[in-house]
Amino acid sequence: MFKNDTFYWINQIEKASTVMTYKENIITKEIAIKVSKAIEQLATSEIRPTDYLDIQPMLLKLTGPKGSMIHVGRSRQDLLATVYRLLIRDRILELFKLTLETRSLFLGIAKKHVDTIVPSYTNGVQAQPVTLGHLFVGYENSIARTTKRIVDFFPRLNCSPLGGAALATSSFSINRKKLASLLGFDSCIDNAFDAVQLSGIDSGAETSSIASILALSVGTFIQDLHINFHHIRPWMLLSSSSLKSPSTLMPQKRNPVALNRARLLASEVIGDAVRTSLAAHNVNSGLTDYKRAEASDTLERACNMLIELNEILRGLTVDKEAGLDQVNADYSMTSELASALQRETNIPFKITHSFSSSLVTFGRTNRFKPSELPFNEVCSLYKDVCLKELGIEHKFPLSEKEFFKYLDPIYMVNSYAGYGGSKPSEVLSMLYRSNNELETHTAQLEKINNRLANYKSILNKEFSDILDLRH
Amino acid sequence: MFKNDTFYWINQIEKASTVMTYKENIITKEIAIKVSKAIEQLATSEIRPTDYLDIQPMLLKLTGPKGSMIHVGRSRQDLLATVYRLLIRDRILELFKLTLETRSLFLGIAKKHVDTIVPSYTNGVQAQPVTLGHLFVGYENSIARTTKRIVDFFPRLNCSPLGGAALATSSFSINRKKLASLLGFDSCIDNAFDAVQLSGIDSGAETSSIASILALSVGTFIQDLHINFHHIRPWMLLSSSSLKSPSTLMPQKRNPVALNRARLLASEVIGDAVRTSLAAHNVNSGLTDYKRAEASDTLERACNMLIELNEILRGLTVDKEAGLDQVNADYSMTSELASALQRETNIPFKITHSFSSSLVTFGRTNRFKPSELPFNEVCSLYKDVCLKELGIEHKFPLSEKEFFKYLDPIYMVNSYAGYGGSKPSEVLSMLYRSNNELETHTAQLEKINNRLANYKSILNKEFSDILDLRH
Amino acid sequence: MFKNDTFYWINQIEKASTVMTYKENIITKEIAIKVSKAIEQLATSEIRPTDYLDIQPMLLKLTGPKGSMIHVGRSRQDLLATVYRLLIRDRILELFKLTLETRSLFLGIAKKHVDTIVPSYTNGVQAQPVTLGHLFVGYENSIARTTKRIVDFFPRLNCSPLGGAALATSSFSINRKKLASLLGFDSCIDNAFDAVQLSGIDSGAETSSIASILALSVGTFIQDLHINFHHIRPWMLLSSSSLKSPSTLMPQKRNPVALNRARLLASEVIGDAVRTSLAAHNVNSGLTDYKRAEASDTLERACNMLIELNEILRGLTVDKEAGLDQVNADYSMTSELASALQRETNIPFKITHSFSSSLVTFGRTNRFKPSELPFNEVCSLYKDVCLKELGIEHKFPLSEKEFFKYLDPIYMVNSYAGYGGSKPSEVLSMLYRSNNELETHTAQLEKINNRLANYKSILNKEFSDILDLRH
Amino acid sequence: MFKNDTFYWINQIEKASTVMTYKENIITKEIAIKVSKAIEQLATSEIRPTDYLDIQPMLLKLTGPKGSMIHVGRSRQDLLATVYRLLIRDRILELFKLTLETRSLFLGIAKKHVDTIVPSYTNGVQAQPVTLGHLFVGYENSIARTTKRIVDFFPRLNCSPLGGAALATSSFSINRKKLASLLGFDSCIDNAFDAVQLSGIDSGAETSSIASILALSVGTFIQDLHINFHHIRPWMLLSSSSLKSPSTLMPQKRNPVALNRARLLASEVIGDAVRTSLAAHNVNSGLTDYKRAEASDTLERACNMLIELNEILRGLTVDKEAGLDQVNADYSMTSELASALQRETNIPFKITHSFSSSLVTFGRTNRFKPSELPFNEVCSLYKDVCLKELGIEHKFPLSEKEFFKYLDPIYMVNSYAGYGGSKPSEVLSMLYRSNNELETHTAQLEKINNRLANYKSILNKEFSDILDLRH
Repeated sequence: MFKNDTFYWINQIEKASTVMTYKENIITKEIAIKVSKAIEQLATSEIRPTDYLDIQPMLLKLTGPKGSMIHVGRSRQDLLATVYRLLIRDRILELFKLTLETRSLFLGIAKKHVDTIVPSYTNGVQAQPVTLGHLFVGYENSIARTTKRIVDFFPRLNCSPLGGAALATSSFSINRKKLASLLGFDSCIDNAFDAVQLSGIDSGAETSSIASILALSVGTFIQDLHINFHHIRPWMLLSSSSLKSPSTLMPQKRNPVALNRARLLASEVIGDAVRTSLAAHNVNSGLTDYKRAEASDTLERACNMLIELNEILRGLTVDKEAGLDQVNADYSMTSELASALQRETNIPFKITHSFSSSLVTFGRTNRFKPSELPFNEVCSLYKDVCLKELGIEHKFPLSEKEFFKYLDPIYMVNSYAGYGGSKPSEVLSMLYRSNNELETHTAQLEKINNRLANYKSILNKEFSDILDLRH
Repeated sequence: MFKNDTFYWINQIEKASTVMTYKENIITKEIAIKVSKAIEQLATSEIRPTDYLDIQPMLLKLTGPKGSMIHVGRSRQDLLATVYRLLIRDRILELFKLTLETRSLFLGIAKKHVDTIVPSYTNGVQAQPVTLGHLFVGYENSIARTTKRIVDFFPRLNCSPLGGAALATSSFSINRKKLASLLGFDSCIDNAFDAVQLSGIDSGAETSSIASILALSVGTFIQDLHINFHHIRPWMLLSSSSLKSPSTLMPQKRNPVALNRARLLASEVIGDAVRTSLAAHNVNSGLTDYKRAEASDTLERACNMLIELNEILRGLTVDKEAGLDQVNADYSMTSELASALQRETNIPFKITHSFSSSLVTFGRTNRFKPSELPFNEVCSLYKDVCLKELGIEHKFPLSEKEFFKYLDPIYMVNSYAGYGGSKPSEVLSMLYRSNNELETHTAQLEKINNRLANYKSILNKEFSDILDLRH
Repeated sequence: MFKNDTFYWINQIEKASTVMTYKENIITKEIAIKVSKAIEQLATSEIRPTDYLDIQPMLLKLTGPKGSMIHVGRSRQDLLATVYRLLIRDRILELFKLTLETRSLFLGIAKKHVDTIVPSYTNGVQAQPVTLGHLFVGYENSIARTTKRIVDFFPRLNCSPLGGAALATSSFSINRKKLASLLGFDSCIDNAFDAVQLSGIDSGAETSSIASILALSVGTFIQDLHINFHHIRPWMLLSSSSLKSPSTLMPQKRNPVALNRARLLASEVIGDAVRTSLAAHNVNSGLTDYKRAEASDTLERACNMLIELNEILRGLTVDKEAGLDQVNADYSMTSELASALQRETNIPFKITHSFSSSLVTFGRTNRFKPSELPFNEVCSLYKDVCLKELGIEHKFPLSEKEFFKYLDPIYMVNSYAGYGGSKPSEVLSMLYRSNNELETHTAQLEKINNRLANYKSILNKEFSDILDLRH
Repeated sequence: MFKNDTFYWINQIEKASTVMTYKENIITKEIAIKVSKAIEQLATSEIRPTDYLDIQPMLLKLTGPKGSMIHVGRSRQDLLATVYRLLIRDRILELFKLTLETRSLFLGIAKKHVDTIVPSYTNGVQAQPVTLGHLFVGYENSIARTTKRIVDFFPRLNCSPLGGAALATSSFSINRKKLASLLGFDSCIDNAFDAVQLSGIDSGAETSSIASILALSVGTFIQDLHINFHHIRPWMLLSSSSLKSPSTLMPQKRNPVALNRARLLASEVIGDAVRTSLAAHNVNSGLTDYKRAEASDTLERACNMLIELNEILRGLTVDKEAGLDQVNADYSMTSELASALQRETNIPFKITHSFSSSLVTFGRTNRFKPSELPFNEVCSLYKDVCLKELGIEHKFPLSEKEFFKYLDPIYMVNSYAGYGGSKPSEVLSMLYRSNNELETHTAQLEKINNRLANYKSILNKEFSDILDLRH
């Protein structure tokens, strides 16, 4: 997925060091030319070691010992710290892009199902009828916060340790800011000790935290989808065959295995993030443990997780009838019945809630769906509850038609009055706002990518200029 | 440490709900007055349950069933989600404050030791002489990023789920924005499903990640300090007796036990953070697991960790002579010797490095400190190396005085030329910049606290207005 | 839950030290009597510090400085290491007992439902009809392995570090084996360095691993139960009201909140276990971090988790009709249909599987339950599949009666032929074996408890003997 | 490191299934012969998929559809569960072997340094002089417990899920016990639901716990070694050049990088183990998440960790003089001085401890090593302390010669009287006991390996018999 490996980035650093040391008169024109040609040649090498102890000899073989001049004021310590950040940068920008895609897919489904009625669950049992659009905007919003976290983190990540040497800088007048900008960093990490020895710890941990938090959000969605498949008639389906798998044993099986894959990736991302912390925990400054691949590995896995999720979202279809039937088979509309009764009659909610609860018990015991309740029994039950709880005779205040209206999920969904609620018109407003934020984030990513492309073309230009110098 | 408990915050929410439902004409003046008096009375209750199932009866006992009117459009789900955020808010602002204190202490020590020379370690062995000021500005900078993370996180945290009810809102026209501002929230979480059922997962995980990342930074410092105590003459000391403990067995012991306490707290914070993730991992939406105290517990422990760290920093003293002696006893100045030889002679670094390395082997084998090296042996060794590696006779180019100058850590520390390096003048610049950023963050915290105080006074005023209403 | 606190155990250690030092002639009779009386008096103290630095002065206040003689050859290090094991020992034996109770409850339910048919799920969709007894014996067996782990671990845990002093022993001739047996330890940890400084790390981690593994098993069961509650008609129910909670908003709710409590405890146990590892990770030997309460805290939480689980099991009831209806509403019997067709016709399973799969698609598309399938359509579908896949005309080989027999879950469950399978008679055999193993473990716990009681009475006796000495 | 991949093990399972189904008359001789030849041919295939959905077609291509007969009574679920255990078995036996090697290396070093004196540390400062042999026997003993854990775990691991099918067995009369023994399993997992769907969760978690606990023990040793390298003259050295790395910048560096590699591997093992738990946490039964490679990956990493550790131990050399000098430079012998004074004078330890502590302060303040203390000052200090604390004049009771004897680490080390202490003769006893246990464990591993080899030869024989059948 990521074409720029460690060797590539060390080669880019070599270019930047050559440009800088030449401009700062640390190396002569002759050395600059010789080294540049060697670097150019090495760029496409088949052999691609990751330790500078193995790479430098490749350079010196082409340039002689003087090629080592571009390494002044550097050590393997700051090289390692710099490559670490560059690898993470590539991967977090890919993750950024993938979150935008995920969000666009969630919003696309939400838009198609602004008024599609499905059950919702709290404490693991049916709660209230909602629109699928409402739920999916909600899932999108949770992913949007991860995008926002990346936006906040990026300036902390995209700053350069290079030139910090082991931790103290050196007696050579290295231009750290020039090095930074040639490699696309927005700034230098101020303190060289922090830059080379400390900042990788917290930046790595923040990197993997972002991935881990995202994995939790993804996990919630997957588990919600997973529950749905336990039903005889799931209302959310996976239409694409690559997301499902048959059983060699059981002919009825259409296993939603893409969920397993996504969930395992989410678990692994969270585990990887713990590993990133463990690699740094109780380790002294000055060590390399926390500059290894842990954090960027976590991001690679997180990217794979979103790729899997996005496939699931692309293949997701909805059986509207199944969703509505599932709602109509249970009593999750009775909170609206109780509210309406309170409004109509001014009888406190406590009593109307108590009546509705008795109604549910009666209905379930007799295996009635709400729409099958015998109205005369309803009226008589109401009378009993009022007599018992209030000590008064009270006629059921609703007509049969009104009564069943309140038990209609479509009516109920349209009566949600709160900001951000499940009502179709409100979902449309949220979709508008969410799409706006998605556009903002898309523009931010584009801006970063443009800036990096610009930095890269400057490095290419200044490096080519050296190659073009005449002896 | 935190005076506002769950009961306090539910009481504040009751006040806000009363003000809002009265202003929105959901409850009558009579009910508003009655309920307000009851809430006022309950505020100072000795019995302080945390579950609204236990709190509502206390209210209704004072108001009769009509008191339940202020609960319309709410459920225990959004109450739980709201209290969760309020508890975290209190604690993260305390942590914010404590990071400022920690940073101020680090910078204070750094300022006193701008030119104090101490050893530094990479790969666990002496690397180069550095100034203690340089190191301590570095530690401060790593903590400063945690402050910055809190600043970035705060807008994501300080927004209100209240009025989202179970997840769909309700058929009552609840004014969520009014409720939000009365409780000091800067905004509402848009989507009610996200607000009540999803956002707590990632906000909780982000909360505990911040604490965990901080703990890693603290851990690094503690372990660096810890290493120093293994020496016969540590250069960083704990002067305050509360930080040390004797041994009942060993008379020579002055155990730096405050380090143990701080390190264990750091380990526990990281463990708590994993627990926060575990409480949410693979759990469906609609559940309460991830709305419990995990994240705010993590913050409490993180606060205790900083309190311990700050005590350590307050009690930290430096034995300058011990630090310098430790440096002078090893060969960490030879990288400057090799650099200087290259500059003086134009012989490639590879060769001067090779000579210096041989010198170190010679010195260690014969148990010389650098300053004790016999100069004639140095010259002769140089000749040997040049003959062997370059095939030429080469006289040692430095005078005895120059040679020993380059092995002087004071000279070396003052020759660091890089931005952010260990040179005293550079440390002063960094101190200036770091203090500036500390002031900025201090102002940001003050602004937040003022805003919250203002919101609180509005709630008090509007609630008092109701109490003052005449029937 | 645990009456013996740290102070209690240090007091017991004091008794043991008094007995041993007296018997080894390290202290005189006079001192022995004086100290014993003081220890006796302190046993019931209201003030109960946990650090020996605070406890020793309490003793010396009663005895004068000579009371410190019983501390020879000890240090706070081995005291801490010893108490650590004693606290864990109390808690792991409680956990042992609780697993026996859990297992007994699982087996009790299994016994009542040897032939109760319920759906099973693989990949999150219905797999095959099974007996509830089969499933519950399976859950029991997974908990039984935790009991077995405790049995294996106990000899590693129940050995004594006492007398190792700081790590090297001392120049006093302490009888470590006598001290061990007086405190109920089965042996000494051989090497004093290992005993006091190393063994706590791996023993603590093993302790919390055992709890964590148990929590994973508990979590699986809870999540299986949880899924069941998402159905309109769950087949496993919680009858006891303390396990459920109403909603203040939604009248239809009977939230199975005990599941939430148990699941959160399981998550916390796993998190606690990670914390135990973190407290030791990358910490040097000789420190106290990993001798603190982490591991025994984990066990306390694990005990609470089992107490909650056992309540759930006590309140669990089964709606047999709901379970059977759920099975009959889906096509999980078709693997038996395919097998039977292969047996009857010798047509390869691949073809009979393909026919059955088409049948499922046909049935689901037309919303037939298996029992509602029109037989003539079945026959015609069979012909089509054979023609298409084998190129031959083939008459459906089963009579209508036979066909529906194979779709009957009761028939299917009784035809499982494998060892350990879901067939009622096989479940009875498994119950027999499981109950046997439960009895074995029960006897092992009893034996351990008897041994500890015996050790304790010896300590009491030998300590009383000193109290009874005449001057 | 591990030559038997998933494809290999599935191929072995195919052989076992062929043998069993033929013997149980489930398949005919003709099919048995045909299938056997195909399996034989596939064994050496270059293409080696891991999913049976991809492997079965390779078989059927060679046998036609009848080859699927050997799959009766199996499903991919029990295949997955079986392969999972076989991969873990290979790896845990390798880990078993490596722990034996590690222990042998520790004991070998200990044997060479039975009386080599080195400092020890508690609370991160020098504690008491000890013998290196004592410490290294201690490290060995901690690893020995991991071997013991593997021994205890092995019977829980080495039992077979095969034939459990999806979870319920099937209507075919599969001989599970025969299958088990053909694959080297010591028994079957009794309950098919447990076998296929539950037992992998706790077995996987136990597997990775064992690795994680081992990693903690390894980490402690590495960090102890690591501390030692911070000294100017470390007493434990790495002689082999592959364990060290130079610096491209700093000529004095001989970085002990093997420690970094081992420590990072230890951190990763612990992280991997958390990941194993996370993959199962809150996941329902019937899923595949926890049957994937997590646990066996953890073991592979653990093996790599021990290989690295063993290299370190092979390259470890000791500078006896450096160790002794380090001890002589600090005051860790004063606990013996205090003890001796108490024994000689009968003055309570509290007073002799107080005197010794004052002596340390005096010595350190004046930068005396213990051996450099002016004896007249010692006597005068003693008088002062006695006067102050006891109110009496008291002459120092030791001669100058005696006084310095007690400050001699060699004297002190030889005076340790406790069982398992640091005295050379005691170390020899411990070495004897430890070597005995190592031999016992070596024999146990050999026995297991022989048993597995025997099972394998039976499978080969019975499978060959089928190949040799005539049509």
